[in-house]
Amino acid sequence: MKAEILTVGDELLRGEILDSNKSLLSEKLLSLDIETRWHVSVGDDPADMTDAFRRAAGRSDVVLVSGGLGPTRDDLTMKVLADSFGLELVLHEPSLAAIREFFARFGREMAPNNEKQAWFPAGAEVLPNPIGTAPGALLEVEDTLFFCMPGVPRELERMLDEQVLPRLAARRPGGAVVRARLLRTFGMGESNLDDLLSDVAADGDVVLGFRTSFPDNYLRPVARGASAEEAERKLARTCDAIRDRLGPLVYAEGETTLEAVVGDLLQRAGKTLAVAESCTGGLLAERISAVPGASEWFRGGVVAYANAAKSALLGVPEAMLREHGAVSQPVACAMAEGARERFGADLGVATTGIAGPTGGSAEKPVGLVFVALARAGVTKAQEFLFPFDRARHRMVTAQACLDWVRRTLLGVERALPRWGRRSP
Amino acid sequence: MKAEILTVGDELLRGEILDSNKSLLSEKLLSLDIETRWHVSVGDDPADMTDAFRRAAGRSDVVLVSGGLGPTRDDLTMKVLADSFGLELVLHEPSLAAIREFFARFGREMAPNNEKQAWFPAGAEVLPNPIGTAPGALLEVEDTLFFCMPGVPRELERMLDEQVLPRLAARRPGGAVVRARLLRTFGMGESNLDDLLSDVAADGDVVLGFRTSFPDNYLRPVARGASAEEAERKLARTCDAIRDRLGPLVYAEGETTLEAVVGDLLQRAGKTLAVAESCTGGLLAERISAVPGASEWFRGGVVAYANAAKSALLGVPEAMLREHGAVSQPVACAMAEGARERFGADLGVATTGIAGPTGGSAEKPVGLVFVALARAGVTKAQEFLFPFDRARHRMVTAQACLDWVRRTLLGVERALPRWGRRSP
Repeated sequence: MKAEILTVGDELLRGEILDSNKSLLSEKLLSLDIETRWHVSVGDDPADMTDAFRRAAGRSDVVLVSGGLGPTRDDLTMKVLADSFGLELVLHEPSLAAIREFFARFGREMAPNNEKQAWFPAGAEVLPNPIGTAPGALLEVEDTLFFCMPGVPRELERMLDEQVLPRLAARRPGGAVVRARLLRTFGMGESNLDDLLSDVAADGDVVLGFRTSFPDNYLRPVARGASAEEAERKLARTCDAIRDRLGPLVYAEGETTLEAVVGDLLQRAGKTLAVAESCTGGLLAERISAVPGASEWFRGGVVAYANAAKSALLGVPEAMLREHGAVSQPVACAMAEGARERFGADLGVATTGIAGPTGGSAEKPVGLVFVALARAGVTKAQEFLFPFDRARHRMVTAQACLDWVRRTLLGVERALPRWGRRSP
Repeated sequence: MKAEILTVGDELLRGEILDSNKSLLSEKLLSLDIETRWHVSVGDDPADMTDAFRRAAGRSDVVLVSGGLGPTRDDLTMKVLADSFGLELVLHEPSLAAIREFFARFGREMAPNNEKQAWFPAGAEVLPNPIGTAPGALLEVEDTLFFCMPGVPRELERMLDEQVLPRLAARRPGGAVVRARLLRTFGMGESNLDDLLSDVAADGDVVLGFRTSFPDNYLRPVARGASAEEAERKLARTCDAIRDRLGPLVYAEGETTLEAVVGDLLQRAGKTLAVAESCTGGLLAERISAVPGASEWFRGGVVAYANAAKSALLGVPEAMLREHGAVSQPVACAMAEGARERFGADLGVATTGIAGPTGGSAEKPVGLVFVALARAGVTKAQEFLFPFDRARHRMVTAQACLDWVRRTLLGVERALPRWGRRSP
């Protein structure tokens, strides 16, 4: 089964939007062992849309279309799809009633331009949209299945899960099975990883892909087998070999974030965390508290941007700030200890640095960062000189802190990654 | 000039990655009045890559290719591009030397698999990559220009700006000029905006596009003219009409974020801000401090996840927490006042709510949020009941807070957006 994903919208081709739907759709297709062969986007232009629909019908078995179902004047998918294959548009009364009801539920009246969302190509099966006004459709033409879905990601995902995937699962033929995993690493560059793993997945049974997602590097082994069991077995063997080689460099698999790993370790150890942030400005707290259930093990944090706040809220001595400056090892340690004490947490982590683009000096350049970790009786700090920009200085600093907490809880503490590290 | 963007990589077609390069490339092309007509992605598969290269040569004048230039085994772009048009690969000695030097600069030795990055299709012009190991290339075949660039976004952007766009600008023909702007709104739904603006940009000279970027809605007027002046004039007229109709619903244009608008207003008013966050968990501080120069007007914040932290760090009375609970109007107000006082700021903003997925009750369901704003002598709170999920409850709460600060500074304070608002 060859799949193609076609997203429609001028906003995509003008570069105004990050098209997250394509990755979502491909990932879900892969879970059914259906490989996506093409991603295509065209604008709200009937000629280009027609060309794309006809080309897709010629080369793909399944086409997932997203976008162009909205109520506004630039939404043309149903009309052009019908025209492309010489079909009429017909009114689907139940959809019109459902759209009216959707508005009534929120105490609002249906805008007149929403009515067009109830017209579909003749012969199409209408796919309900329980959380939005635009229904989808399945149209089979020239042995190709076109599934049309809304562009709004959450409506798309729900329709995909409830309407599209079950229909595809029922039709999918047997054959080679594909299984893949994603291993997340932090602390080593991509070509060094490739070198270190040069003899892993080298026999053609399993393909090893690499991907950078700053500041992480991901490994993606993909295995094929005649059965699910065979593919799983090959994949497991490869993942074991990678983990043997890399040890704690691999911090998680799949969608599991570093903050979720840290939360899980804290929960299991019965320990709590608090943070004190200067250069990361709340990013660390934001990531930690984004984990559902974080209130169990996260006490809170202080974003101490002003020096006065470092003293008043974290108890950093004013004399220390005067003598060493806010971006210094002693201040990082005092911040971590302050967070730990003020929040009554087991572990305190702190960041202070010069994120840029301005604020650097010869002695303390942009990219200079101190992070500190305080436990009962022990406080340590590390110094970095990162070569990135403001946003990435914040990202890598937050990641380095979380990884340090993880390694501390695992008992495999070691020097942090090598970028511009000034002190071990 | 018809442009096509072609990104290469199995990771794209497996949905492991958000392909941000396509939007970047399209946006930059538009700045040269070059419209992108197709976005295409294929995997690291020589047959599909060949098909895509040949199809692009048949329909496009310019093809921007990104990805597949790395050192790892799955990077095939140069080899397949050469094969697609019957060309040899030739070694480019200066590139090999540059790659060696790149590693030397970081005190590391070149990995052997980096050498392949110095081989290019015969006849190609090599495009230097000053911040990475993979050079790019310009290949002209069958009247089509193929620009091959790295997939790493910052390397891609630099090569695009320094190497690709100047070459395109020099070759671009005259003709219709396109100008576009992005107007960012917060607080009204897409179809209501379309209704309200139904007579704006209705004459064909200017096309008005709509886009949702949660929790915002963006408007995108695009004007065409025989000259840049004509296109600009039409565009300005349309934008004025939109702003007349929508007033302060439009908070910014282009890439300007709401936090940047707030920062600018604070700076001009000579005022400072501090935040106290419970349900937003640091998101508000993170967004505010991401604005370069934020230390001028942002004092800091407290992420008070635990009740004890709300008392100890923000001075919320323990009796108030017992009587009303942490998610309540009095506690929101006390948090905002506490932030304002402890940080010595002019304005204090606070959030407390039940972000979900758990923690709700009949009386205080998931999605219930209180936000408060404290100024000298005045503290106000608002109550919401949002129907989203954890991540979006945090996002919309942060946006509502920032918009409230913006409107307060502008003197156009009004009720916050209508989603599930419980009290005005």
